[in-house]
Formats: sequence, structure tokens, C-alpha cells
Amino acid sequence: MAKAPKNAISPTRAEDYPEWYQQVIKASDLAENSPVRGCMVIKPWGYQLWENMQRALDDMFKATGHQNAYFPLFIPMSFLEKEAEHVEGFAKECAVVTHHRLEPDPDGGLRPAGELEEPLIVRPTSETIIGATYAKWVQSYRDLPILINQWANVVRWEMRTRMFLRTAEFLWQEGHTVHATREEAVEETERMIQVYADFAENWMAMPVTIGAKTAGERFPGAVETLSIEAMMQDRKALQAGTSHFLGQNFSKAQEIVFQSESGSREYAWTTSWGVSTRLVGALLMTHSDDDGLVLPPKLAPTQVVILPIYKGEQRAAVMEYIGQLTEQLRGQTYNGAPIRVEVDDRDVRGGEKKWHHVKRGVPIRLEVGPKDIEKDSVFMGRRDQPKSVGMSRAEVVGKIADLLGEVQQNLFDRAAQLRSDNTVTITSEADFRDYFTPKNPDSPEIHGGFAMCHFSDEDSLQDLLKELKVTIRCVPSDNNDTPGTCFSTGKPAEKQAIFAKAY
Amino acid sequence: MAKAPKNAISPTRAEDYPEWYQQVIKASDLAENSPVRGCMVIKPWGYQLWENMQRALDDMFKATGHQNAYFPLFIPMSFLEKEAEHVEGFAKECAVVTHHRLEPDPDGGLRPAGELEEPLIVRPTSETIIGATYAKWVQSYRDLPILINQWANVVRWEMRTRMFLRTAEFLWQEGHTVHATREEAVEETERMIQVYADFAENWMAMPVTIGAKTAGERFPGAVETLSIEAMMQDRKALQAGTSHFLGQNFSKAQEIVFQSESGSREYAWTTSWGVSTRLVGALLMTHSDDDGLVLPPKLAPTQVVILPIYKGEQRAAVMEYIGQLTEQLRGQTYNGAPIRVEVDDRDVRGGEKKWHHVKRGVPIRLEVGPKDIEKDSVFMGRRDQPKSVGMSRAEVVGKIADLLGEVQQNLFDRAAQLRSDNTVTITSEADFRDYFTPKNPDSPEIHGGFAMCHFSDEDSLQDLLKELKVTIRCVPSDNNDTPGTCFSTGKPAEKQAIFAKAY
Repeated sequence: MAKAPKNAISPTRAEDYPEWYQQVIKASDLAENSPVRGCMVIKPWGYQLWENMQRALDDMFKATGHQNAYFPLFIPMSFLEKEAEHVEGFAKECAVVTHHRLEPDPDGGLRPAGELEEPLIVRPTSETIIGATYAKWVQSYRDLPILINQWANVVRWEMRTRMFLRTAEFLWQEGHTVHATREEAVEETERMIQVYADFAENWMAMPVTIGAKTAGERFPGAVETLSIEAMMQDRKALQAGTSHFLGQNFSKAQEIVFQSESGSREYAWTTSWGVSTRLVGALLMTHSDDDGLVLPPKLAPTQVVILPIYKGEQRAAVMEYIGQLTEQLRGQTYNGAPIRVEVDDRDVRGGEKKWHHVKRGVPIRLEVGPKDIEKDSVFMGRRDQPKSVGMSRAEVVGKIADLLGEVQQNLFDRAAQLRSDNTVTITSEADFRDYFTPKNPDSPEIHGGFAMCHFSDEDSLQDLLKELKVTIRCVPSDNNDTPGTCFSTGKPAEKQAIFAKAY
Repeated sequence: MAKAPKNAISPTRAEDYPEWYQQVIKASDLAENSPVRGCMVIKPWGYQLWENMQRALDDMFKATGHQNAYFPLFIPMSFLEKEAEHVEGFAKECAVVTHHRLEPDPDGGLRPAGELEEPLIVRPTSETIIGATYAKWVQSYRDLPILINQWANVVRWEMRTRMFLRTAEFLWQEGHTVHATREEAVEETERMIQVYADFAENWMAMPVTIGAKTAGERFPGAVETLSIEAMMQDRKALQAGTSHFLGQNFSKAQEIVFQSESGSREYAWTTSWGVSTRLVGALLMTHSDDDGLVLPPKLAPTQVVILPIYKGEQRAAVMEYIGQLTEQLRGQTYNGAPIRVEVDDRDVRGGEKKWHHVKRGVPIRLEVGPKDIEKDSVFMGRRDQPKSVGMSRAEVVGKIADLLGEVQQNLFDRAAQLRSDNTVTITSEADFRDYFTPKNPDSPEIHGGFAMCHFSDEDSLQDLLKELKVTIRCVPSDNNDTPGTCFSTGKPAEKQAIFAKAY
């Protein structure tokens, strides 16, 4: 595809990354802000992307022995009071239902009526309400493990929102499991973060690091929080999924007790894990460019779009040829499913139509006009490459699955390259300060990237991080066995962590 | 299968139908009441059933040109004030969010804080919030039609709830479409009620009648409401799905305006349509018996369950045989998908295990023990028939898809028979009174059934219906062209309606 004189998205990433992000969402029809503060409307293109993510994840959850269920949207206020850290973490920002009716107002409008005896909270996460149910289900070791997932909406009253990344209402899944032993629960916590990493890398083409959160960054009430962390194009980190080992904290707060095989009465061990529509934002910031969205083929709602080019009476011949081509392409499979092909025969100017699909990130475009048909060939453009090329029909049909596979791999490789180009090991506070100080005053978002540092988690370190607006993303699980000294305090340090600015 | 000495469900349908309903839900693990008033927990078996319904419906929606999207959970209170009938219908029973934070209470608990400037309503249905968005999307006739569906949870503050049939929170889908002409919108309204009828009859094996609601029974704000009505086993009617032609009522309230091809400014025509988890209750009351749930094979989470029978060291041989049988069965397809086979090798007594699957409604059970293996045969039990039969392995593998098809058809036929046995034409008020008066004082639920009556919709008729607790279900669309006289007033009447007691 010949480059247009200027980019489809303004501003470009280099000019203003946060604003570019909003403009890509708009240009690609993923979502828009709604009339309700902090809530978004997920438009069909964005929702199809989420549906494809859901389907892949759901299959992975079921393959690891989980079943879906559904629990109430509301949590009685008293439930939130039971686990001290949890209430501290979630009571601060939630939607509170206090009335169950509207009645006419004297001045002609409506007003709340029918006050509830106990206020209800719109779930910010469901540990408490699900735990109360599990307490009834669990009597004996024979009832364990419980391996359940829920697809649901949740609400957290965020003050500063950004579509997909941080919205008051968002869609997610939350797994909640109960086990007889600590070992089993730890194993489950680790299994599910691996599932997330597998999904991120193999479906989203987004390289991630698995690691443990430090104490200050854990889920409220968790003993350990594992996360997957990805690098966005502005070199900030994004937490893309978390899996929590909750120990016996919630089972003690909620009396999830079972009789063991030997007859003793024991508190169960629980876990929870989740990913959300935030993944759509992560996908966008991992692959997209200054012409709009770039989608990995495995998740793209349309993998191949065919654009007919004709004038007047040429239409019949072109559309007939395209009809055959479409059938042939749909007969091919990629990633275990028939290839998703769309023909765009809308009455729109050719250039505008092409850009429509470029901006929406369709992996492969095929243009077909009368001259191509004479040669039994098509013009093939990959979204991840600048130039289109002519290919015979036989070649494009025979190679289409390979082409999609190449796009998928190329996106992963590019993202992995960016991450490795922008990850350094830092051993002194001076280097650390320098790394996280933006060099270009016009692009305050662009700073160093990921810093791998040995550290001891003390107050003085927290002060430094607060000053530089840097956070400890995670203590990576792999290749992290060599002790060193803390880059800041100089004290002996067993582990290194990823330090980064973050979403 | 030999009959157990007594039924698995107590009370039986004849003894107490409403209580039987609750007990079937409990015995089949579909759902349970939650700690939140009026909200239920949908357990894995119930949720899988709902997922299968969702998948089939979603495919049908997409095949008719619809896409999914997602709109906010909350509706600003002022939005509900715009359409007069609509607010009248929905403002009376809704969850109202008035605060966005919890803070410590002086006596150690929590209390709502951060009062909102404008209360938010948890959506009871989304016409108003989706309409506000459509008003921005629709500018020109080129933007039409909009054909969108949403899978979501909604909340209606019901005072008397019953699991699946009427719960404060329920899951549903709501389609919302916008059209340039009245004709197109009417066509869409009719298309979608046909889709629902197709789903009810061909997937749920539940015969339904399509018809129009009378004025008093319409959706608040609709010009016309079409519904599908089914007869439950207690001869009451259940409205299983509705499709509303909203005319220009909502487009006028929300300014959904477009420029027509000729340049004029016109209000758009809208529709909405929905089915909910209520369908699970409908399914239960259409097919289940005094031994528990009976599931139509097309929707059953497990279509065939294999029950190993062995003692001690017989296990290895039995399980190996079953492993082969399972593979062979999974290699067969029914209704376009591989057959869903489950092997239940839990350490539970044989009888108890069999009843577990009977109560959960699994269509076909195969029992396999050492003696069966010697004969290369299995013992096959159909959930819709009392007796099990011996069959050779080759026969059961070769016939399994046909067997499932026979169960599916038999369930439909039985339900159709019940409906036709309990539908009469009534032409006088005396007969009408008699028909709807329970004959057996021990079973006040069992009354006549459906009455087909010519009618004129006047106040005196409404008084009679109120007295007898009978409602007009719908004016059937088919075979309803012969005028008559109103059974109650004796006045000329163009159409007949189905009159029935109803859920």
C-alpha cells in the first residue's frame, strides 16, 4: 500500500501518546464515552474483539477444569466489612444503592424513594459475595476443589478514567477457587497466571513477564499477587492480568470451613484471578501505529477484507470473481478455525474504503479490480507492512494461513524487540534517576523504559519511587536467583524487580 | 431404568406445582437463592444451560445481520423522565445509586458517602441509554439501519421473586434497532419474534404461539408488542420472549433524527426485543417430571453420561472399555456439533450416581459393567422413557445421534400434546368462568388451560379477568381472520385471543 501523504491518526505517537490513544479508539470504532460519567460504550468492532478474547480465554479456563457460574451484582454493605484490608481497598470507590424506587418530585421530575434497610454495593470484585456462597457449599474435603469462573461487569468509582484502561464500569472475568491445601491453592494461582501469559503471548502477540507483586502492590486481602506485565510503546508498563493466592484470609472472614479426611475442621485455601476489557487497551498500545489500530490475526474480527474496485458495469464480473475468491479463502483454516473474510462492497470512494480498514487494523487487505481479474491475481496489503504486492489468486489462497501466521509472529517479534531495546539493568540511584527522567521536554511520556534492579523494599525506596512516579511492577519468577545489592540503599538484596512508570 | 419406589422430587407436580418447581431447581443444581434479596446464584449446571442458549441465539442474531455491543449499566435519572409511559412502567421498581463511596461509621461499620449530583438507575432495560447514544450515531439515512444486540444483566426491584421466573437481577439480551421507515421497523419486529419462536420450538422443544399483546399488556412506550407464549405443565401461560415495535416514540423522546435521501429531517423508527434467563424456568416447567429436570438434547450441557459399574480390580478393564466407547461417541455429531459425553467415575454408590444424572436431566445414560463388556454391549436409559434397554456397542454408537434426535422430538411432541389437550374455544362467559375455576381444591394451580375467545377489549372484560386472575396472553398472528362475537359482551369482535392464567 502506498503511504498516504500524512498519517491517518493525528496526533502521532511521537507528538502526543495519550491523545493518539484516544484518537485510535475513535478512528477504529472500538468505543466511545457514554453520557454516564466514567462509563464507555463498547461499539461492535470493539465488542467483537472482546468476544474473541473471551472465547479463547474461556476455552483455556475450561481446559484447566473450570466451570462458569453467575453470582449477584450486589453486595450487602455488611459483607464488605468482614475482611479488613479488602474493605480498605474497595470501599473507597464504589457505587452504593440506597433506594429501590423512584417517585414523582413536587417540581415535576423524579426522586429516589423506598430506602433500603441495608445499602447494597455494586460489586467492585466478588470475593465477599462468592465467599459467602462457598461457605454454604463447602462442608467436606469431598466438596473440594471448587473451580469456578464468572464473566461479569464490575464498578469502581474511578475519578480519572480512560477508555478501556480505567473506567467506572468494566467487563471482566473473575475466577474464584477453593482448595483443601495451601499447596493446591498456590499451584492454582500459578497455573492461572501461566494461562494469562499464554493468552497474552500466543493470542494477543504481546510479550509479558510473570512475577510477584511486592507487599504494597498486592490485591487487598491477598497473601501473594502474581501479575503479567507488558511494555507499551511509550515504554510504560501495563498490568494485564493478576492471580491472587488469598491464603486463608477470606475463608476465615467468611467461614469457609471443611472437614478433612482425618475428621479435623479446617479453613479452606482460596484464590482469585482476573483479566478485563483493559486487555483491549493493552492490545492497542502494543501494536497500533500512526495509521490506527493493528490487530493480531488470531483475535481480529475480520482477518481478511476484500475490496472490490470497479466502475459501473464492471461490477458484475468483479463481484463474481470475488465471490469465488471469498469461498476459496473461507475454505482455508487458520488457528483451527475457518478464515474470517469480509467483502466490503459499500458505495464509498476506494481510498476512503481502504483507510477505513487500515484504521480498524484488519490484518490483510485484498484489492481486486478488472485488471487483476485479467491476470487472475489480487493486490495484497499487510497491515504490518507498508507496501502492497501483486499475487496470483492461487498463491494468495494457498498462502493465506501462512500470511496470517507471519503477521501474528511479526507483531510479537516487534513488541519483544521494543521491550528488549528498552530494558536495562541498573545498579545505582544516579543511573536510576537519569533513566526515568524524560530527555525530550516535548514528549514527557517517553522515558527510559523497564529497569531491572536488585532492591530492598524500604521506606526510603518508596520515597524515591514516589518522587520519580515509578513503581515496582513485579519480581520476575524466572532467572531471578542471583543475589545482589539494592541500587538505592546498597544493602544486600536477594531479588531484582522490574521498575517502570505504569498505566 | 427400573423405577425407584418413590419419586426423586417431593412434592410431585400433582401435589404442589410451585414447590415442585423449587425442588427441581435444587435437585438439579441449577441455581439457589443468594444472600442478596431477590437475586439468585446461577450454579454451573444452570449456567452451562444458559450458555448453550446464548450460543444458539447469538448465532441466530448474527445470521440475521446483528452485531453485539455493550452500553453502560447505569442510566442517569433524568433519562428515564423523557418517555412518559416508559418512566411510568419502570420507575416504580429499580435500584437507585445515590452515593459513590463508603466511609467509616462512628459505631465501627460503614456508611454511604459522596452523594451523587444526579442519582443513577441500574438499568431495568436500556432503551433510554442506548437511544441517547443512537441519537449521536444517526445523522443520515446512510447510517441506517442500526442492528445491535447486547448481552447484559438488568435489575427490576420485584417484591415477590421466584428463581429464573422473576428475580431482581436477571441476565438477558436486548436488541435495539433503528430504521429509516416504519415498514422496515415492523419487519424487524416480526423477524425477531420469529427467531425467538424458532429457538423455542427447535432448540428448547417448547411449542409457542406468536401473537400481539393488547394495549394494556404492551411494553411501556411501545406501539406494538409481539410475544411468544408457551403452556407450562400446570396449564398456565408463560411469556417467553417479546419484540417491540416502538414507532417513533423513543426517537422523538431522544431526538434520533436523520436526513432522508430527499434531504428532509425525519424521526427514525426503532424496535427492541429480548429474552432472558426466564427461559430456563420455562424449559424446566415444559419438560421436567417428578424425578427432576428433563433437558432437550440440543441444549443439554451433557448429552450422554456414561456410568461405569465395577468392583475393585474390575475397574481397569471397565474404564478401558469406556475410554474407547467415549472416543467413538465423541466422534459422532448431533445438531452440527460433536456429541457432549461425560464419564462419571466419582466414588459414589451406583444408585445414587444414576439418580444424580436423572435429576439433572441428562438425556441419555449408558451403564457399563463387566457383564456388559463380555457381550460388547451397554445398558441404555433415555431420560424421557421409564425403562432402560440393552444395546450392542456398535448399535449405540451408530444410533446415538438418532436417539438424541428422538428424545428432542418426543419432548416437543409431548408438550404440543399437552397444549392441544388443554386448549379450548369458548364463546360464553359462563363457560369461561367454569373453565378457569379450579376443580380440585387440593390443586388450585390446575385449572382449564388456554381459552381461545373472540373478544372486545373493554372495561367490563378487564373486571372479569381481574376477578378470575386471567390475562389476555396475545392475539395470535396465524389463523385469526374469522370474525365472531365477544364471549363476554356479545359485541362483534374481529379477532380472538388466548386467555390464560400466567406466570
